[in-house]
Amino acid sequence: MAAAAPPPPPSPTPAVIYEDLLPTGYNVFSRIRLATIVDVPHIHKLIHQMAVFERLTHLFSATESSLSSTLFPENSPPPFTSFTVFLLEVSQTPFPLIDQNYPNFSPIHKTVNLDLPITDPQAETFRSCGNDVVVAGFVLFFPNYSSFLAKPGFYVEDIFVRECYRRKGFGKMLLSAVAAQAAKMGYGRVEWVVLDWNVNAIKFYEEMGAQIMQEWRVCRLTGDALQAFANINI
Amino acid sequence: MAAAAPPPPPSPTPAVIYEDLLPTGYNVFSRIRLATIVDVPHIHKLIHQMAVFERLTHLFSATESSLSSTLFPENSPPPFTSFTVFLLEVSQTPFPLIDQNYPNFSPIHKTVNLDLPITDPQAETFRSCGNDVVVAGFVLFFPNYSSFLAKPGFYVEDIFVRECYRRKGFGKMLLSAVAAQAAKMGYGRVEWVVLDWNVNAIKFYEEMGAQIMQEWRVCRLTGDALQAFANINI
Repeated sequence: MAAAAPPPPPSPTPAVIYEDLLPTGYNVFSRIRLATIVDVPHIHKLIHQMAVFERLTHLFSATESSLSSTLFPENSPPPFTSFTVFLLEVSQTPFPLIDQNYPNFSPIHKTVNLDLPITDPQAETFRSCGNDVVVAGFVLFFPNYSSFLAKPGFYVEDIFVRECYRRKGFGKMLLSAVAAQAAKMGYGRVEWVVLDWNVNAIKFYEEMGAQIMQEWRVCRLTGDALQAFANINI
Repeated sequence: MAAAAPPPPPSPTPAVIYEDLLPTGYNVFSRIRLATIVDVPHIHKLIHQMAVFERLTHLFSATESSLSSTLFPENSPPPFTSFTVFLLEVSQTPFPLIDQNYPNFSPIHKTVNLDLPITDPQAETFRSCGNDVVVAGFVLFFPNYSSFLAKPGFYVEDIFVRECYRRKGFGKMLLSAVAAQAAKMGYGRVEWVVLDWNVNAIKFYEEMGAQIMQEWRVCRLTGDALQAFANINI
């Protein structure tokens, strides 16, 4: 293999102007942007880490190829009209401005001020485009519908922040990015599920104003049972 | 107002051939087809009846106009890629064959054999196109996504059968039509919610092979809380 090329000189691209920088501590620059098909290897690793965290690796069968074809099919519909992924990236230096301005979305930039720097043992694995940009988490969501309101909403299927970036407000930032998108588009609701024993999460959601639908139970038909039931009209 | 025109002569359109007709009792002919924008007045009435049935009319704010613009927007995406409505229609005579063959869907026809005829006090209100065709129910569903499977599924938001048509298998027929569509498209799951005190429904769903996700709780962010949370990244 040829030796790696020397790193390119610093980009002259104009950088984001941060209004929330603090002069003390460690500023971590963060960005939430729409994922594209080139992000699939990172998305795949994040979903796998989520399965490990939830002790559900026996249910995990996604591959990079199956994620690509289902999340980013040919003739993909516009973002937000179908399955949509926001990636959370962090960097020790300001992000360059990128041209990802969809009709209703521009990347969200925020700095997080910490007392101690973050040590990321998997920084190389999750290296993203840019000098020292690392993928730290994601949220996967898609439209749902309320017939009583006659309005779409968003359903959040997954929200995940890698371990060394937790408890720093990034999860809230990702969820809020979805809520902001819903509000911008005039949508009526954002919904997701939580495990009933996860009292800390429930407390957090209630504090942010979410209702917990205590009487509802999700029903799931899958596998052989789905196939069998699919045939009863035939 | 002019006097009503005389009814048109019987249509020469070829009719569906039913293989499940029984020589005794009353055969009710039924059809499940994709709804279109001309069905919105019926869909609106059905959703309102559902709100009355669930004692949730205080949450009902859908209008024909808001349903039209959200369920059947201009440049509607193809059926099944977004919000989709199947209508259940019944008739005392065989349905004509209609040309509603999408790549993955043809109307489903079935006869239901009853000991007694059904008296429908709202037959005029729910009259559909065709000689004596009446709208009896609907199911509203849309794609969801499992990141562990890297596969879409369907989420059933509403399933409703008008009162005089209940307990005759029509609800099962509608749910099975969604399951059949999921199976045809290679989708991984069909999901919906049920109220935890509705033990008859839960028993029915479990018997058909559905899992009830006992530990999951749905969280909902809506109204002012949604707007407030949407602004925290700003």
